[in-house]
Amino acid sequence: MEMSSKLLEKAVAEISQLPGIGKRTALRLALHLLKQPPEQSQHLAEALKKMREEIKFCNQCHNISDNDVCELCANPLRDKTIICVVEDVRDVMAIENTGLFKGQYHVLGGKISPIDGVGPSQLTISSLVAKVKAGDVKELIFALSSTMEGDTTNFYIYKQIKDCNVVTSAIARGIAVGDELEFADEVTLGRSIIQRVPFENSFKNN
Amino acid sequence: MEMSSKLLEKAVAEISQLPGIGKRTALRLALHLLKQPPEQSQHLAEALKKMREEIKFCNQCHNISDNDVCELCANPLRDKTIICVVEDVRDVMAIENTGLFKGQYHVLGGKISPIDGVGPSQLTISSLVAKVKAGDVKELIFALSSTMEGDTTNFYIYKQIKDCNVVTSAIARGIAVGDELEFADEVTLGRSIIQRVPFENSFKNN
Repeated sequence: MEMSSKLLEKAVAEISQLPGIGKRTALRLALHLLKQPPEQSQHLAEALKKMREEIKFCNQCHNISDNDVCELCANPLRDKTIICVVEDVRDVMAIENTGLFKGQYHVLGGKISPIDGVGPSQLTISSLVAKVKAGDVKELIFALSSTMEGDTTNFYIYKQIKDCNVVTSAIARGIAVGDELEFADEVTLGRSIIQRVPFENSFKNN
Repeated sequence: MEMSSKLLEKAVAEISQLPGIGKRTALRLALHLLKQPPEQSQHLAEALKKMREEIKFCNQCHNISDNDVCELCANPLRDKTIICVVEDVRDVMAIENTGLFKGQYHVLGGKISPIDGVGPSQLTISSLVAKVKAGDVKELIFALSSTMEGDTTNFYIYKQIKDCNVVTSAIARGIAVGDELEFADEVTLGRSIIQRVPFENSFKNN
C-alpha cells in the first residue's frame, strides 16, 4: 500500500512482523497510536525495549524472571521436592492461577518435535535430569500437552530418570468440569472411565 | 494473570491498550518478541517512538506526512482544482491504490457524529471551506462512507459552499464490479438502477 509517510510505513512494517498481525491491522494500530497522546507510544516503546533487554530466565526453573532466580524458586514456602514439568511460561501462569500447586516448576521451553526442528538439546531437559539425579526431588509431575510431541518428550525424560528414586506422575485427563458427556470426544471420555477415581475423592479440590 | 516478571507484566499491559488486542494476545506477542533477536524489539520500539514524535499532518490537505506539505500536495503534476474529500488517511491510500485520481485530497479526520461527540469543529471543515472560497477549486468530490454520519457531513459542507462557483459530486454507489445481482442489498441495487450510466461509458476505466 502506498503511504504518504515513510515514518508510518516503517512503523507498519515493524508491527506487521508480529505473528498474526497483517499489514492492514498494523496500519490500524499505527493510526490509532497517532490519535492518542504521544506518551502512550513512548510507554509502549520503552516497555518493549526494556522487557527484551532486561528480562532473564530463572537459572533454576528457566521461567521468565526479573532476577537470576525467579520468585517461585526463591519462595521458601514452596515445596522444592515436587517439580511440575511444563512446556512454556504460559503453562506456569495457568497452573499458578489455579492456586492449587505449591511445588516448583521446570520450564522445558517447548517439546521434542523433529518436524519443527526441535530436538532434546534445544530444551532444558539436561538441567531437569541433573536436578533429579542430585537426589532432592521426590515427585515429578508431567504437565505437557497431550499430543504426540508431548508424549514423546515425557517418555524421553522418563527414560533418563526412571532408575532414580523419584515418583513420576502425569496430570489427569478427562471430561472438563462443567462439560456434558455427549459432547466429549471418545478418547477423552474413554480415558476418564479407565482412570476413574474413588467417589469420595472426586469432590476434592485440595 | 499472575506473571513471574514485572517487566513482562508491564509490556503486556502496554500492548493490550491497543484496540482489539486483549491480555492473552498481548502475552503471546510479548513472548514471541522474547524468542526473537533483541534487534526486532529495538527496531519496533524505535519505529513506534519515531513515528509518533516526528510525523506531521500536511498543512494543506491534513494527510499524514513526513513534511509540512505532503508528497501529494507538493506534486506539481496533480490537479489542484479538483479536491476529493475523505474521512481519513486510509481512504487516501485506498483511492491512491486505484491510480485513477490525479487531483488533490482533503482529509476531514472523521465525520460529524453527535453520538460519538464529534462536531464540525473537530474536523478540518473550515479549512476546506476556506480553500473553496479562495476560488481556485473547480470540483469537490465527496468520497465519505455512505452512512447517516457521512451524509450529514456532506450536507453540512455542501450548505457552506453551495453559493461558491464550484461543481460538487459524489463517488458512484452501486453493485461492486464482479458481484452478482442476487446477493446485492436492495438499497445498493436500487441506486445502481436510478444512477445508471450510458452503456458506452460503462466500460470506461479512465
